[in-house]
Amino acid sequence: MNAQPERWGRFEHLARWLPPRALVVADRRVLRLHPQVRAALSRHDVLAVPAGEQLKSMRSLERILEQMIGRTRHGWLAVLGGGTVGDVCTVAAHLAMRGVPLLQIPTTLLAAVDASIGGKGAVNLSSGGGAVKNAAGVFHAPAATWLCPELFDTLSPRQVREGKTEAWKMVLCFDAATARKWARRAPGVLEWLRVGRAIKAEVCRKDPLEQGSARVLLNFGHTLGHAVEAATGFRVSHGDAVGLGMLAALDVGRAMYRTPPRTAERAERLLAERAETLPRSALARALAKVDASQLQRLLAADKKRTADPGHRMVLLERIGRAGVYPVPAFTLRRLLSSWREGRRP
Amino acid sequence: MNAQPERWGRFEHLARWLPPRALVVADRRVLRLHPQVRAALSRHDVLAVPAGEQLKSMRSLERILEQMIGRTRHGWLAVLGGGTVGDVCTVAAHLAMRGVPLLQIPTTLLAAVDASIGGKGAVNLSSGGGAVKNAAGVFHAPAATWLCPELFDTLSPRQVREGKTEAWKMVLCFDAATARKWARRAPGVLEWLRVGRAIKAEVCRKDPLEQGSARVLLNFGHTLGHAVEAATGFRVSHGDAVGLGMLAALDVGRAMYRTPPRTAERAERLLAERAETLPRSALARALAKVDASQLQRLLAADKKRTADPGHRMVLLERIGRAGVYPVPAFTLRRLLSSWREGRRP
Repeated sequence: MNAQPERWGRFEHLARWLPPRALVVADRRVLRLHPQVRAALSRHDVLAVPAGEQLKSMRSLERILEQMIGRTRHGWLAVLGGGTVGDVCTVAAHLAMRGVPLLQIPTTLLAAVDASIGGKGAVNLSSGGGAVKNAAGVFHAPAATWLCPELFDTLSPRQVREGKTEAWKMVLCFDAATARKWARRAPGVLEWLRVGRAIKAEVCRKDPLEQGSARVLLNFGHTLGHAVEAATGFRVSHGDAVGLGMLAALDVGRAMYRTPPRTAERAERLLAERAETLPRSALARALAKVDASQLQRLLAADKKRTADPGHRMVLLERIGRAGVYPVPAFTLRRLLSSWREGRRP
Repeated sequence: MNAQPERWGRFEHLARWLPPRALVVADRRVLRLHPQVRAALSRHDVLAVPAGEQLKSMRSLERILEQMIGRTRHGWLAVLGGGTVGDVCTVAAHLAMRGVPLLQIPTTLLAAVDASIGGKGAVNLSSGGGAVKNAAGVFHAPAATWLCPELFDTLSPRQVREGKTEAWKMVLCFDAATARKWARRAPGVLEWLRVGRAIKAEVCRKDPLEQGSARVLLNFGHTLGHAVEAATGFRVSHGDAVGLGMLAALDVGRAMYRTPPRTAERAERLLAERAETLPRSALARALAKVDASQLQRLLAADKKRTADPGHRMVLLERIGRAGVYPVPAFTLRRLLSSWREGRRP
């Protein structure tokens, strides 16, 4: 297999490079929607799985690992799916024989612009009846990535919006020039996909194990985003939750005098008009039944928590630049009522 | 906590350095035999577990990981136990929040001289009704190791023999001068413990991720050793199985003209007299019901297997030097009848 890390092309063409002993873990919906994919994999071992947050369990992980038994350390694990399939397969590739090469074939735009880059994988654990997202995970960079644009043709408008939201997150936090350009003229799918991937790859290259200060900035919108996912039992999808989390983070930034009001307004308008993120009413619905103490619990389970009594959040300092700041619990409590009422604080 | 990687002393004294938010996963037998240990941990979270191969499951791993929820990335995971407890906790420390510091407190001499060094951890998976040993694992070097000799006082003669067997393995493969010295005068426990640890640490330092040629040599005796463990449902313990695997590897080395006959005889005598490894009759009992095709299956499940149709084994070239060689399946089949009859081929 060519060691080139990123290849673009139709799946049938790329599949010729797939090592014969590879295990392909595939979202079963993708196999159903794209018969040519199944045909191109006729000589390979394919494990069809149901995508979704519930796939990110220790049980699924064990099932995939069992399929790797009897293969060699040089056997590839190929993942054909979105973020949840990629997350659990990244852990599996890391653990199987203490590490086998991973081939990422993202089938959602969100996975293509975010999860498939940077090597993070994780599964969820349960604690007191609830799921704790990404509580157990690894860093295991893909050995190669394939991008097959025809696989994106069957995505729903929501799935397109999720990818676009992440691409806008990258641009708002890291690239003011592109934000200005995209404000004037909306980019096409392939453009925001390429730019979003390039920004994320560069950030991860600087800080592969999230030990420095670069990579944590990718979590813009994630602190409240994870809380929204957990509060709604993952009915609000990850990309949409991050979109809502960014709106909340802009509010926090204004309340703490870190995000200038005009920057917050401009970012919120770009998210609404260009990224088509969900409106504040969706945030209100997600948090409708969340009181202050529950919000505290949801945030406390977040794995990025340090020993501080408060929380650390990524806030936008200006378009193209973000920073990490400690946020007192009372600031979040105070904003919660506005969020629940669907109004801008 | 002092960053010094290795500390020797009584547990009560060392326990003063244990970070207050650490989770201590402890072999419950050790807690029962050493009341002073439990007393010294009165202010810590202690998870008592039953040691043994059955602990190395995905279920146990999940249970330990659940105990790590709500701690921080700077929270330590301390493991107080032998190799099996250390193996599963090493995986847990690697996965919890994508990596927390691991403190190794080996309570068996085998773990002290082998498993606690070098960062390897793993759990077993099942395949077709049988367990596949270490099929899923990680490299996660301990941030610190404590050695408390009083914890070794309660070990059985078998447990002492297991540690000594591993120390002799290191010396036979890597250190001819020490082998000569120990042939003349049997070393005391603390001597073979220190020397065995130093050799293993140096080998792992050269090849931390087992990608080069150094670390694989530590598997001397392991190919057949793993088969003996699997064939007996782990009733023959790891250290004893490796002792028997070394006898078998010496036979293979002779049959393939890699181990000179006098070297094999001398190594076998040293193992019997100095390391007190189990005799050939134990190998015969372990393999009594194993036929050629079952041996093939047991060896095929070994994770070190490459794409070769045969097997790769570590063979002794001379005292103090080992090498890796491909071994045809028919050579092993031919030797199997001698092993089953308890005689030297």
